[in-house]
Amino acid sequence: MRLIQGSITAPKGFKANGEHIGIKNKKKDLAIIYSETPCTYAGAFTQNVVKAAPVLWDQMVLNEGEKVHAIVVNSGNANAATGVQGEKDTEEMASLVAEAFNIDKKQVLVCSTGVIGVDLPMEVLRKGIGPVAVKVSATHEGGEAASDAILTTDLVKKTIALEENINGTTITVGGMGKGSGMIHPNMATMLGFITTDVNITKEMLQKALKKAIDTSFNMITVDGDTSTNDSVLVLANGMAGNPVIDQEGEAFDKFYAALYEVCKYIAISIVKDGEGATKLLEVNLEGVKSFEDGKCIAKSILTSNLVKTAFFGEDANWGRIFCAMGYSGISFDPAKVDISIESIAGNVAMLKQGLPVKFSEEKAKEVLEENEIKILVTMGEGKESVTAWGCDLSYDYVKINGDYRS
Amino acid sequence: MRLIQGSITAPKGFKANGEHIGIKNKKKDLAIIYSETPCTYAGAFTQNVVKAAPVLWDQMVLNEGEKVHAIVVNSGNANAATGVQGEKDTEEMASLVAEAFNIDKKQVLVCSTGVIGVDLPMEVLRKGIGPVAVKVSATHEGGEAASDAILTTDLVKKTIALEENINGTTITVGGMGKGSGMIHPNMATMLGFITTDVNITKEMLQKALKKAIDTSFNMITVDGDTSTNDSVLVLANGMAGNPVIDQEGEAFDKFYAALYEVCKYIAISIVKDGEGATKLLEVNLEGVKSFEDGKCIAKSILTSNLVKTAFFGEDANWGRIFCAMGYSGISFDPAKVDISIESIAGNVAMLKQGLPVKFSEEKAKEVLEENEIKILVTMGEGKESVTAWGCDLSYDYVKINGDYRS
Repeated sequence: MRLIQGSITAPKGFKANGEHIGIKNKKKDLAIIYSETPCTYAGAFTQNVVKAAPVLWDQMVLNEGEKVHAIVVNSGNANAATGVQGEKDTEEMASLVAEAFNIDKKQVLVCSTGVIGVDLPMEVLRKGIGPVAVKVSATHEGGEAASDAILTTDLVKKTIALEENINGTTITVGGMGKGSGMIHPNMATMLGFITTDVNITKEMLQKALKKAIDTSFNMITVDGDTSTNDSVLVLANGMAGNPVIDQEGEAFDKFYAALYEVCKYIAISIVKDGEGATKLLEVNLEGVKSFEDGKCIAKSILTSNLVKTAFFGEDANWGRIFCAMGYSGISFDPAKVDISIESIAGNVAMLKQGLPVKFSEEKAKEVLEENEIKILVTMGEGKESVTAWGCDLSYDYVKINGDYRS
Repeated sequence: MRLIQGSITAPKGFKANGEHIGIKNKKKDLAIIYSETPCTYAGAFTQNVVKAAPVLWDQMVLNEGEKVHAIVVNSGNANAATGVQGEKDTEEMASLVAEAFNIDKKQVLVCSTGVIGVDLPMEVLRKGIGPVAVKVSATHEGGEAASDAILTTDLVKKTIALEENINGTTITVGGMGKGSGMIHPNMATMLGFITTDVNITKEMLQKALKKAIDTSFNMITVDGDTSTNDSVLVLANGMAGNPVIDQEGEAFDKFYAALYEVCKYIAISIVKDGEGATKLLEVNLEGVKSFEDGKCIAKSILTSNLVKTAFFGEDANWGRIFCAMGYSGISFDPAKVDISIESIAGNVAMLKQGLPVKFSEEKAKEVLEENEIKILVTMGEGKESVTAWGCDLSYDYVKINGDYRS
């Protein structure tokens, strides 16, 4: 596997563009991804009971099994809690893109992110979509423009591309993501778009995506809020020309590994760019009974405001970590728990077998001053291990979310 | 029912004192409550897997069914995650109080609140407990001193006393509480102490307490963190002289009503004093399928950092409320949901049957500028209604918890 320059336009046959059409005040607000040939498509969506209209559309397309040609994404408006009108507007967005490329509307996926409960400005979209579609490009710049246009409170673009060799054929996986607040995917407005030229069946693509998401996007949290719009979409157009991947085996494993790396990169990028975040926190749990138990405990630690503010304050307050584990709802023996913290500045053990360890506050401070910190926990309950990512809670989180809408 | 001056020393036969003995830097840090006659005792405790030593002690006393004479509480140190040494220290605290009053150590309940994972300074407690015990007093001031000594990051005392007439006999219920951070009881370090001179059996006292807690302490949240030490203890010494309450009926109902008011008052006082809180939020859910469903949805709203920061910012962001309901884990039909906000400045409808309502932003701002705000939700799913309380999330929450320990 090899990291290469670029993002969603790196795989063969994919074009993209992103521009400002007038949904937001000045920033780019519309992105289109287009594949020269129809794509096998897999998707994963928010578990929120309140689902935005575009999520319903993309799920319908997934269930009806159509090949997909394009994705259109607007930022600045989530088209959520907009009822029947919202569903009509999503369908019209798909139609506008379909017209531009002379394809069927059911070959167009739609994503929206932004404020909830406001109807889409359809006049703006009717005028804007065509001109953006005309200028999709297979260049690096096309991908960059699209990845800019999907952002809301994000501070940085999240893009990546990888190459892998499968039995002599080079395949490429490219990805872009957005998300910064309302992140606790299962899924959030977290959006992930992955393109690949691998030749793979829909069934195997969906299988690879589900597996990759369970240990990447679904293991991150910024604020515990699962949005109405979270979606991760993968398009595979087969233009790499490898023999079709239609079962598990070496070729599937290699593609999966590349897909997982792209998912994990985007997921961690989202956490790093978490609203107001100053530190990336990684929880490593060893010796848990099951993956589900571990996920629950890890997320309990990473969603605790007391844990998050302690890391913001660079305070070695392991008691809050231990406490958050205890109220996760998972039973365990506290007397078997070890906790340490680690960063490039070193490792400091804080709890052994449920009892505090005397440690150097100075050393702990050094470890905590770094931007990326690991919380290492051994449970002594079983053989599973689980990794999850989150971030600290800062003044800026409160500032950003105290006046987002107004 | 009548509100009277005073707190835990208002019921007949109860004395209290609180002083600084040296656990904390300068503030009062030890409280003792003492009843002239042995008391029937009921208690409710944290559901955290990691339980502090005093919680284990008080549960043991509850299970072994001893009458109780006294409660000792220290602030500044939670005696949690302190292993066997912590259990020995709790037992010694009970013994020290028992010696002072010439009672059995199993007649003494112990509570601790403060930092986790540090052994209690037993030298300080050995010297300090006796002199504080000697000066317990039945005066209003005795109760005030005790209610001061149990505080940690709290800004205000939380005390109340009520009188009720049961078949011609006046009974009194007094209470004090503490808690400000790590509040998401089921139970948190939230402590509640209730004294009463009512004559009641242990079984009926426990029944009344459980019922009162389910709809008061267990319906509040400050930060979603359930601590290792949460306890609510009720002592009833029978000195009011009413015929013993040993079954349900009018007398039980009247006592229950007074107990509930005391619990609710302390619970809401804790939320109002939530770390950094500027607003009290009350969620009223109507038309839910079951109490448990409603509790889950209400707490999902009140623990959402996005909802909490929106209220801090006085932003009418109903989308975040709707979204938090959607990821609560409870299924419901979004198209049946109404949401409005209310304060003494008026009521503003924001969502009707799942769709946004046009409202005056000016009016909404007026409603949101108040310190106490209700979030009114009708679900259209069933006949239960549920009320829960929480608070907003401010810069000060981050400040307080970014440097609590250091």
